[in-house]
Amino acid sequence: MTSPRRIVIVGGVAGGASAAARARRTNEHARITVIERGAHASFANCGLPYYVGGEITDRERLLVARPERFRDWLDVELRTGHEAIAIDPRNRRLVVRDLGTGRDETLEWDRLILAPGARPLRPPVPGAHAPNVFTLRDLHDADGLHAAVTGGARRAVVVGAGYIGLELAEMLARRGLGVTLVERLPQVLQSLDPELASVVSDELRRRGVCVRLGQGLAGFELEGGLVRSVTMDHGEGVDADLVVLALGVRPDLRLAEDAGLAIGPAGGIRVDEYMRTSAEGIYAVGDAVEYTHAVTTGPALVPLAGPATRAGRVAGEHAATDAGPPMAPVLGTSIVRVFGVVAGSTGLTRRQAATAGLPVRELLVPGHDHATYYPGASPLVLKVLYHQEDGRLLGAQVVGRNGVDKRLDVLATAIGLGARADHLATLDLAYAPPFGAARDPIHVAGFLAENERRGLDRFLAPNELDALPAGAQILDVRNADERAADPADGTIAIPLGELRARLAELDPTRPVITLCKGGQRAYFASRILRQRGFADVRTTTGGMVAWHGCRGH
Amino acid sequence: MTSPRRIVIVGGVAGGASAAARARRTNEHARITVIERGAHASFANCGLPYYVGGEITDRERLLVARPERFRDWLDVELRTGHEAIAIDPRNRRLVVRDLGTGRDETLEWDRLILAPGARPLRPPVPGAHAPNVFTLRDLHDADGLHAAVTGGARRAVVVGAGYIGLELAEMLARRGLGVTLVERLPQVLQSLDPELASVVSDELRRRGVCVRLGQGLAGFELEGGLVRSVTMDHGEGVDADLVVLALGVRPDLRLAEDAGLAIGPAGGIRVDEYMRTSAEGIYAVGDAVEYTHAVTTGPALVPLAGPATRAGRVAGEHAATDAGPPMAPVLGTSIVRVFGVVAGSTGLTRRQAATAGLPVRELLVPGHDHATYYPGASPLVLKVLYHQEDGRLLGAQVVGRNGVDKRLDVLATAIGLGARADHLATLDLAYAPPFGAARDPIHVAGFLAENERRGLDRFLAPNELDALPAGAQILDVRNADERAADPADGTIAIPLGELRARLAELDPTRPVITLCKGGQRAYFASRILRQRGFADVRTTTGGMVAWHGCRGH
Repeated sequence: MTSPRRIVIVGGVAGGASAAARARRTNEHARITVIERGAHASFANCGLPYYVGGEITDRERLLVARPERFRDWLDVELRTGHEAIAIDPRNRRLVVRDLGTGRDETLEWDRLILAPGARPLRPPVPGAHAPNVFTLRDLHDADGLHAAVTGGARRAVVVGAGYIGLELAEMLARRGLGVTLVERLPQVLQSLDPELASVVSDELRRRGVCVRLGQGLAGFELEGGLVRSVTMDHGEGVDADLVVLALGVRPDLRLAEDAGLAIGPAGGIRVDEYMRTSAEGIYAVGDAVEYTHAVTTGPALVPLAGPATRAGRVAGEHAATDAGPPMAPVLGTSIVRVFGVVAGSTGLTRRQAATAGLPVRELLVPGHDHATYYPGASPLVLKVLYHQEDGRLLGAQVVGRNGVDKRLDVLATAIGLGARADHLATLDLAYAPPFGAARDPIHVAGFLAENERRGLDRFLAPNELDALPAGAQILDVRNADERAADPADGTIAIPLGELRARLAELDPTRPVITLCKGGQRAYFASRILRQRGFADVRTTTGGMVAWHGCRGH
Repeated sequence: MTSPRRIVIVGGVAGGASAAARARRTNEHARITVIERGAHASFANCGLPYYVGGEITDRERLLVARPERFRDWLDVELRTGHEAIAIDPRNRRLVVRDLGTGRDETLEWDRLILAPGARPLRPPVPGAHAPNVFTLRDLHDADGLHAAVTGGARRAVVVGAGYIGLELAEMLARRGLGVTLVERLPQVLQSLDPELASVVSDELRRRGVCVRLGQGLAGFELEGGLVRSVTMDHGEGVDADLVVLALGVRPDLRLAEDAGLAIGPAGGIRVDEYMRTSAEGIYAVGDAVEYTHAVTTGPALVPLAGPATRAGRVAGEHAATDAGPPMAPVLGTSIVRVFGVVAGSTGLTRRQAATAGLPVRELLVPGHDHATYYPGASPLVLKVLYHQEDGRLLGAQVVGRNGVDKRLDVLATAIGLGARADHLATLDLAYAPPFGAARDPIHVAGFLAENERRGLDRFLAPNELDALPAGAQILDVRNADERAADPADGTIAIPLGELRARLAELDPTRPVITLCKGGQRAYFASRILRQRGFADVRTTTGGMVAWHGCRGH
């Protein structure tokens, strides 16, 4: 018999609805109340950009958790249009305001679950709150932006090239607006390393989006209270009928801080593996909390729906029963479609691995989504990062047109289960011509990692192309026609098929860097050289993808 | 310095080309010769059905391993049109016949790698070798079948409903032939459990293929040396202009048996983890060998290209260097597209688990390929089998229209890495509306497995629907309109939302089986009943998918 405790959940979206459901599943006798500021118990916040862009035409579809479901299926009291004002942790009370009447009421709880989410950042510049400057957090925001884009706006500036910024840039272009995407950093998508991010920015430009990298927002020019132009930090202005600020989010900590809950080093509510905060009886889930990162094992902000849902489940059961399984560490796996290109990442990037002090090796594998002899194969590039000493996978990135989500999920699964990079070579993946190949790019990554770990080869990481060893000879083993179509300056050209006969053209006492289109022939060349007396040979991982994508970054 | 040994490889297709490449990569000084009976070093045998069907229009595309590559890149001697006639293991010699001149020659080897592949089965009935009766093993077969289907054949009978049979049934229908698919067993695709296989046979019928299950081939009626009609074991005849025998394959053991190599219990060449046969210096790879199955740990025939490629790599390196990594156990992951449906499996089916003596629990999860609020979501069904005691994953199956290959590869990765079923709940998979959902069907499977393992729920496996506990009450918690559209006879109807108020209609001392459309509400209902005094409650996993797919099988 489970106990008839009172559970109050603040926030329905970011893990709250999930907590309510699990609490009821595990405690039929609890009294469960969900407090939600908005008009709806929950909604599909990841769908908002597609509603703005008109891919999702029916707004009702975004309302995924119906009130009847809370009432009839869950026997949960749902109070929409109510805001949690203050927590009294000592007396286990919560002040709740009815946003309709303005009246306050005090609720008692035995367990409190906070799902406050995160707020979009707004820069502290005049005009940042003008009516034609938008952020996108909830349905209300989406309605406003929807009205603006369907109401005659012609020029949009999107500030920030993260997931939301890219999705909105596409969606606004889809609505026929001229779109300028502004990003302070020199690349889009911080979750990708530069050589892969450039595939995404190339696609944006190809589809007519004006992409301005390395240019920050300095301010706004206003006219009649509306922003008419966005001023860049180089001083130039970009005319705009509307502006979207997609600069990222920050945990909504007001309630938590007022109640004295501990905030962790990453800036989120500190929780343990059962999502318990520092105050007894109070849990927190979703974009406002710090999760444990599966690779660094440190605290991390991961404002994504998947972890929020799973954390809600953990908190709901523990709040309802004082037991249940712990929250699993997270990888921050994420994916975005940008016009015809799909890009995703899981675990750590090169920069994040460096920040975490992890010695990282990098592999870049250009390949295809399925067997090239079957029609419709499209190229993709897969990147794998692994620990230089123990070989365990630290992160992965995939960019392409098709099959990106599949490779990414396989890699996230492997990382989550603690696999080494060379384990990828052994995965028994499904192959039929429309779906893959006997050697998937994932297998190739595993083969290459195994080669490196066993000393058969050594890769030149993409970012090492800018700092080659002294006296290095860069050997390009592509054919003449490939070189003519896509030159690589400063290299020595010997096609792979002629290498054995032309070894005398290379100096075996100096380092050799091998290069080809995708990396395979360069590896072949490296193996020939290594076995024929060359002491220092390295293979350019990813071939021309790395050559073009990294030099100069 | 690697040794200048002589390596001879027999067969280019099933792992042979892969062995040659790896041998050269790891031993620049070996003398490597590939003997291939056919006209081409290697070809894409998985692509043959699509060439027959006209999806692959350019035959040249099937020739994936060019002679120049062997010569220039690999420095490998390639002898096509040559057949290995006899092995002398003691003196390390191989007799090779030039199929053009008929002349024999004896090659010496230090290491021999056999990749003989497998032969399609032909039943011992008169007419099985008639010119209009086809099997599909190599390009020559494909050319013959291609000529027949483009040469005016109108009616085809495909015997055998495995992967090749289904692919050819679709391809022949695509060419405009009337197709009858005959299968002795009561279902298509033995790699699927019956409740999922029926989705595939339904699709075949919907697309106009006449599917005859439980009907074997008895013989042929011949006219002028050609088969004119196929006789079924019930005596009925089906007219045919051409017949395809897709009854499976059997290892091609001629050379191996003649040389006295040990054959294993599954009927393939016995090899160790380095692909070494029982004879010193002789390796074997591909469809003719027994691999170690990752789940049963026993020997298994797995005639698939992926393992063949990886085994070739292992054998190639070991033959070239006497070292290298071992072959990883295999799962037999496979996938097939049948018109608009995709079906795949990995690890063990229910039947295979039973044969292996493993106590198995089964989960069926109907879901969608991506978030249902985003346009274009299509249904899929995922099945997970796990060990009743230790919870480890034993197998998985997925059927649907989109996103099947992704789930299958994630599940194959999890099984290959030794995960438990409840680990699936913790995977950090990529979610954006076009690609998935915050709760992927894979997560749901993990949640359900965790519930069962922790005693929160107990599932009624699909095949248990035919043997319900005595006195069981089947509780259908769907709404009235769902019941009207898709009746479930013999059930007690109480919609989930009314269950708490109508508990008195059920007898808490008798078993209750809960049922809904997909399994979620049934689980909710089970949790309510279990917490309100019902002693024996079981949830129909997969809901109506199991209800329709299993009863009567």
